Amino acid sequence: MDILLLQGANMKRLGRRQPVEKYGRFTAAELDACIQTHAKKLDLNVEIFYTDFEGEAIQKIDEAAGRGVRGLIMNPAGFVYSGFALRDCLRDQTFPYIEIHLSNGGVQNKTISATAEPSVGTICGFGPGSYLLALNQMKRLLASSTKH
Amino acid sequence: MDILLLQGANMKRLGRRQPVEKYGRFTAAELDACIQTHAKKLDLNVEIFYTDFEGEAIQKIDEAAGRGVRGLIMNPAGFVYSGFALRDCLRDQTFPYIEIHLSNGGVQNKTISATAEPSVGTICGFGPGSYLLALNQMKRLLASSTKH
Amino acid sequence: MDILLLQGANMKRLGRRQPVEKYGRFTAAELDACIQTHAKKLDLNVEIFYTDFEGEAIQKIDEAAGRGVRGLIMNPAGFVYSGFALRDCLRDQTFPYIEIHLSNGGVQNKTISATAEPSVGTICGFGPGSYLLALNQMKRLLASSTKH
Amino acid sequence: MDILLLQGANMKRLGRRQPVEKYGRFTAAELDACIQTHAKKLDLNVEIFYTDFEGEAIQKIDEAAGRGVRGLIMNPAGFVYSGFALRDCLRDQTFPYIEIHLSNGGVQNKTISATAEPSVGTICGFGPGSYLLALNQMKRLLASSTKH
Amino acid sequence: MDILLLQGANMKRLGRRQPVEKYGRFTAAELDACIQTHAKKLDLNVEIFYTDFEGEAIQKIDEAAGRGVRGLIMNPAGFVYSGFALRDCLRDQTFPYIEIHLSNGGVQNKTISATAEPSVGTICGFGPGSYLLALNQMKRLLASSTKH
Amino acid sequence: MDILLLQGANMKRLGRRQPVEKYGRFTAAELDACIQTHAKKLDLNVEIFYTDFEGEAIQKIDEAAGRGVRGLIMNPAGFVYSGFALRDCLRDQTFPYIEIHLSNGGVQNKTISATAEPSVGTICGFGPGSYLLALNQMKRLLASSTKH
Amino acid sequence: MDILLLQGANMKRLGRRQPVEKYGRFTAAELDACIQTHAKKLDLNVEIFYTDFEGEAIQKIDEAAGRGVRGLIMNPAGFVYSGFALRDCLRDQTFPYIEIHLSNGGVQNKTISATAEPSVGTICGFGPGSYLLALNQMKRLLASSTKH
Amino acid sequence: MDILLLQGANMKRLGRRQPVEKYGRFTAAELDACIQTHAKKLDLNVEIFYTDFEGEAIQKIDEAAGRGVRGLIMNPAGFVYSGFALRDCLRDQTFPYIEIHLSNGGVQNKTISATAEPSVGTICGFGPGSYLLALNQMKRLLASSTKH
Amino acid sequence: MDILLLQGANMKRLGRRQPVEKYGRFTAAELDACIQTHAKKLDLNVEIFYTDFEGEAIQKIDEAAGRGVRGLIMNPAGFVYSGFALRDCLRDQTFPYIEIHLSNGGVQNKTISATAEPSVGTICGFGPGSYLLALNQMKRLLASSTKH
Amino acid sequence: MDILLLQGANMKRLGRRQPVEKYGRFTAAELDACIQTHAKKLDLNVEIFYTDFEGEAIQKIDEAAGRGVRGLIMNPAGFVYSGFALRDCLRDQTFPYIEIHLSNGGVQNKTISATAEPSVGTICGFGPGSYLLALNQMKRLLASSTKH
Amino acid sequence: MDILLLQGANMKRLGRRQPVEKYGRFTAAELDACIQTHAKKLDLNVEIFYTDFEGEAIQKIDEAAGRGVRGLIMNPAGFVYSGFALRDCLRDQTFPYIEIHLSNGGVQNKTISATAEPSVGTICGFGPGSYLLALNQMKRLLASSTKH
Amino acid sequence: MDILLLQGANMKRLGRRQPVEKYGRFTAAELDACIQTHAKKLDLNVEIFYTDFEGEAIQKIDEAAGRGVRGLIMNPAGFVYSGFALRDCLRDQTFPYIEIHLSNGGVQNKTISATAEPSVGTICGFGPGSYLLALNQMKRLLASSTKH
Repeated sequence: MDILLLQGANMKRLGRRQPVEKYGRFTAAELDACIQTHAKKLDLNVEIFYTDFEGEAIQKIDEAAGRGVRGLIMNPAGFVYSGFALRDCLRDQTFPYIEIHLSNGGVQNKTISATAEPSVGTICGFGPGSYLLALNQMKRLLASSTKH
Repeated sequence: MDILLLQGANMKRLGRRQPVEKYGRFTAAELDACIQTHAKKLDLNVEIFYTDFEGEAIQKIDEAAGRGVRGLIMNPAGFVYSGFALRDCLRDQTFPYIEIHLSNGGVQNKTISATAEPSVGTICGFGPGSYLLALNQMKRLLASSTKH
Repeated sequence: MDILLLQGANMKRLGRRQPVEKYGRFTAAELDACIQTHAKKLDLNVEIFYTDFEGEAIQKIDEAAGRGVRGLIMNPAGFVYSGFALRDCLRDQTFPYIEIHLSNGGVQNKTISATAEPSVGTICGFGPGSYLLALNQMKRLLASSTKH
Repeated sequence: MDILLLQGANMKRLGRRQPVEKYGRFTAAELDACIQTHAKKLDLNVEIFYTDFEGEAIQKIDEAAGRGVRGLIMNPAGFVYSGFALRDCLRDQTFPYIEIHLSNGGVQNKTISATAEPSVGTICGFGPGSYLLALNQMKRLLASSTKH
Repeated sequence: MDILLLQGANMKRLGRRQPVEKYGRFTAAELDACIQTHAKKLDLNVEIFYTDFEGEAIQKIDEAAGRGVRGLIMNPAGFVYSGFALRDCLRDQTFPYIEIHLSNGGVQNKTISATAEPSVGTICGFGPGSYLLALNQMKRLLASSTKH
Repeated sequence: MDILLLQGANMKRLGRRQPVEKYGRFTAAELDACIQTHAKKLDLNVEIFYTDFEGEAIQKIDEAAGRGVRGLIMNPAGFVYSGFALRDCLRDQTFPYIEIHLSNGGVQNKTISATAEPSVGTICGFGPGSYLLALNQMKRLLASSTKH
Repeated sequence: MDILLLQGANMKRLGRRQPVEKYGRFTAAELDACIQTHAKKLDLNVEIFYTDFEGEAIQKIDEAAGRGVRGLIMNPAGFVYSGFALRDCLRDQTFPYIEIHLSNGGVQNKTISATAEPSVGTICGFGPGSYLLALNQMKRLLASSTKH
Repeated sequence: MDILLLQGANMKRLGRRQPVEKYGRFTAAELDACIQTHAKKLDLNVEIFYTDFEGEAIQKIDEAAGRGVRGLIMNPAGFVYSGFALRDCLRDQTFPYIEIHLSNGGVQNKTISATAEPSVGTICGFGPGSYLLALNQMKRLLASSTKH
Repeated sequence: MDILLLQGANMKRLGRRQPVEKYGRFTAAELDACIQTHAKKLDLNVEIFYTDFEGEAIQKIDEAAGRGVRGLIMNPAGFVYSGFALRDCLRDQTFPYIEIHLSNGGVQNKTISATAEPSVGTICGFGPGSYLLALNQMKRLLASSTKH
Repeated sequence: MDILLLQGANMKRLGRRQPVEKYGRFTAAELDACIQTHAKKLDLNVEIFYTDFEGEAIQKIDEAAGRGVRGLIMNPAGFVYSGFALRDCLRDQTFPYIEIHLSNGGVQNKTISATAEPSVGTICGFGPGSYLLALNQMKRLLASSTKH
Repeated sequence: MDILLLQGANMKRLGRRQPVEKYGRFTAAELDACIQTHAKKLDLNVEIFYTDFEGEAIQKIDEAAGRGVRGLIMNPAGFVYSGFALRDCLRDQTFPYIEIHLSNGGVQNKTISATAEPSVGTICGFGPGSYLLALNQMKRLLASSTKH
Repeated sequence: MDILLLQGANMKRLGRRQPVEKYGRFTAAELDACIQTHAKKLDLNVEIFYTDFEGEAIQKIDEAAGRGVRGLIMNPAGFVYSGFALRDCLRDQTFPYIEIHLSNGGVQNKTISATAEPSVGTICGFGPGSYLLALNQMKRLLASSTKH
């Protein structure tokens, strides 16, 4: 079961992002390894894709839709501010989308991600744990939709 | 490891809430059973408490803090609108608080729960799955804080 | 035909509320008598319930729904400001809800009651007359729904 | 006892208004008949006047005031949006004004009629019933003011 | 001369409230003792009442009014956010009401307590001193009103 | 030198407008006489026109423009709220427009007349004196423009 | 195929409207001729109606609906500001409505016409060309709906 | 009959103010001469006072009140933006205050002078003519109040 | 006569966009064919360019300006939300720009495209017809500018 | 122990301020005497300074800081509206600042004094009593800070 | 070449301003010396003037304009909040005005100085460096305008 | 000492941007030459990079950070509107960032650049001079940080 995991603008810099106390010291590579290990346990095939371009995110999602991806997990990162074109792209997809955030900052600042609206659910504030919970839940969603 | 799970205003009516398509047909009792089963697997001792009174929620949290509860999971439900006194109570606590919602409606309507700000993280939109993911994550939080 | 008539926060103080010129000098007891007399004429069985607690209003409505009440008339009074949890409760009910107010002040101040949205209709500004008109209309609603 | 009943902009189209589910299928003529029957029972002499012009509504009210009308019932309809000149006219009158609406939509959309402020009371959401309740209440108002 | 001193939502937790630097380390019991000592000096009979329920605050004030209380001092605490029903209750009373706050935070955040409007005066920011100043001023108010 | 003096919605009711303390007891006819007497002294030929219809005001101004009127004085009265089509009409004219108001209420409520923008000047708050000052100033404007 | 073409408030003044650079120098009569010539080519029977009264626009549309008009093209002109009663009238119609504007000013000022919401489409900024494009498109709409 | 005429911040620069097309080329001295000539005709004794300090304006008004000035005419000029302390001072006075402006810009920009609220009336847009009209009207006000 | 036709973010997905009822079932390729057929009739040479990147749209327009393109038609699609840099680019061009939209949704939601301001005109709501009308009008614009 | 007591704009007019019912009939001189009597009892050396100029208030505070004043009590009066430069000055001081108001009007109008933010506490609504309570509290603050 | 350098409200306190980390420890005298040294190098004759009174700033600028000053550099400091009269004064001048700020706080708080609008340019955030850069740029501006 | 100078969206078009009176006639190439000449004098090694893609700006900054760039000067140009992802990137960097603008328009329109918040300072309005001042200041910043 193929899953696309999309990392939005500025995520490649993970581990060098400041303040470190907000996003932690683990790097993008370490996060990827941690995600793939967990995915393997769940028997999910996850492609991780980083981009700093909203247009590239749209194209990646379209391309993934074209080859039959089963679900999308995305940390929109820098796209939370004005990623409304990306949101329109997400609205058009038929597979489930789970939005995740490392920190709980959006909730605490009472701002809402531009891309969150078409998500089936959102998970915020648990650092790398947000990714793992999303994988767990995606597995469950796919399992239940497969049964039907 | 003791966990308090608090269900806010209107949650007792679960299964009779309308529209059913929004919250599903499972009842409060069925949800409780499902939560307790999962908690047992995780070796967590969970007390589930329902209240329609914000004042009672505050008192319950104070009482739980007094007897050394390790974490709080809450679906604020009807308290999302003006539960600011409850939020102040949550701000004063030293144990972690995870906020959950059955639906993703708050995110989609771009409204933010009055009680979300003191949470370490939020999980929205996965129905009963929101509770299970919260238990998983609470387990992880307690495990890592126990080590230190 | 059973009707629940709910009087919200501060209504018990009727007759002592200030300014008297706004709400009149009749007391809660006198209002109740006047309502029951009119209900008897319309052959309606009305339970009048006063509460200063929003949570208690929710529980009363749930309890009434459980025993098959046919309609709800409510003067939300002090709940007009932030009774959004009560509004959620009203949204979930299947019997008709008529909202009434003694004064026309909400209309004149261009503020709208937090609980008005799920009502089939609203009647404001006629003092005790608001209650009597609500009973008349409730009778008509029940009569027409009974025929079908 | 003479009453003026004013029907605002777009009311003549009643029965052809769309969506029919909002305003019902009865026509202006059928509504008029229903009102006159009820008025007769209450021994009220009601003149019904339709206009799509705010200026004409003002002139009609002035003319009615000149010949000693005892009360005004109005469904402002299309005048709710910007009928502030009409509101000023209503403020200047000494007879009671009751504002009615067929639907409860204004309350539910949290918008308030431009003309509602000078009313003694408002009745919304009961379809033709709104007119009948208004006649009942107008009768009561006139009866009590006649006694003094 | 009887005075009611009402402590709003979350006040019972005093001394455990966080951050301690905001509200100090003294407990509710220590504050009570300090208030009663000062009241005795001023020859005032003060009843101190804590509640986390807005409805209970309303009922307490009504009950106190019934037995002829001479003045009210209240720290609304958690009721500052949406205690508008409580404000309506305060508006109806004839004895003077002084509102106090431990911290000056409301002023500094440019938010105003929901319950402050019916107060004769407000005192903010002096910790327990706010209570003592309120007692002093209440004494003066009662003395001058007694003379007349 | 021909001047058009336009009286907007509700002005015909002058002297019967309530509260009398706001607009005074003089009637429209008395005001007209007073204006014409003053105009005669200034050797101005003034046509006074009352209308409750914004559309009629537009047509009157167009008609006056067609026959070479030299200036316009208008009390927009009920058109201050949403007379933006009338404002567009005024913008298109080449003769000077002076806007007047009996009371100073707009200034005091911090609302600005919808029609004031194309005026060369505004005079508010002097009752009938507002009309006389406007005539004086119109005379001066026409005198100076005639010289050039 | 009968089409109603409605010209809103201030349109009769076309060619005398100022600034000329905004609306051009052609008059209402010249525009009418140009429209009729184009309509003849498209084999459309167009009635052109000018009004400065929102109420008259409503009545004209109702009358046209009564005799089976096939489509409506309207330049709301002065009705863009507060023509909400007219909008309600348009909502009730079953034939297609195309809204047009001579200038692109609404778009550039980020204001939206009060009457635009029920339109199937809008064309702004092409001067008389806006009318011709609307006729072209109306022809196409009617042709395609006739086929079905 | 003594009148104080107050010129607010930046008025001393008259004639050098830019753009000249807005305020004209006449200087403060020329304006003063023109005012005094007119005042003499009306038999009014006018003191003209210029200040760039809001505090000085307050003191001047207090001083004038102390020696029995009969009326105040003020062009607040630079005090229109935040002269609220000056407004409080004006509220406290018992003699009439007329506010004037050289240009009609405040009306056209839909901003209202901070000091206008306590005025009996306002005159805007007539250049030096605004001062002359204010003197005329002040004369009338004093004449009528002297008679009583 | 060379025309650039630019399709903004998400347009490539046409025909797969959801809900189909909003944008129809025709694909980007089918739309292109339809546009080219119509362009040929009008003797216009149209280059159609799709991009999901705002930066690429800017570069394309600059490049087209460099080689002397005569006009631009653009459906900004996903760039309507925050394409302000693109708008700045459009402001700098000297050839005419016509903005089009498939649906009338922006008008109905009262939101205005970020890129619309520099357009000579806008056409919304006619599906593929919006493109054809834009080509017609562009032809006319170029024809008339060529004559001069 | 030296205290500066600053009286802001319009305070010198005390006793002549209107409405008298708001600020009372006592004059500035009477208030000063009352303050000095109370200060003497508390063994505080109070300098009272009145100013209508925000700049002068800033300079006075700087001068007082220079000679080692121990605390500041201020009734900002007319500076509440836009005294932000004064607020910046207060932020820079190291001695405690208590803000007082004669009336409770700011609280009741939900406006907050521009200068309140750097205060340790605020006392509003007790007339001259506000000054006396401030002296009491300042005494306590200085006593406790002296001990340390 | 004469330059006026104006230091607004609270600037005299430099070096004692708190928090020191925001504005640094250098005093007004030290800053003045540093500015004069730099000015000498650039062959500019700089008058430095400090004031806490907006009215005095206006008068100083007028006086400097009168004696032919060539340019103005101002740190508005405390005048940024409501110095709109000062802004009007700046608008009227013909010499260039450069606005500077020690800190970058206005930009970071997204507030804009009331006086910035008439400036040719602004320099913020470089501490004393802001003054030196302004002198450099003023030199360049004067040099280039002298050549023409 | 290596400096990155980043030119945002639409900057490549410099010299062709319209209106020319806003940005001047010099081209991007001419500006580059002027910058490099000045940099050489200051002994700074400046890389100038143009991009119309926000994502590319982020990647360029990351790449420059990777190879030890000492400072960043950026004219965000088209990124000022919604470059919040770019702002997040800037927040994460440890070298100083100076933001510059050719015109002073942002200040005058009271809009603030999305990317300005993490800058140490901003320079606006001096055309190419903004770049030169930024280089001067960057030199100073690097010199002082090198000493420590």
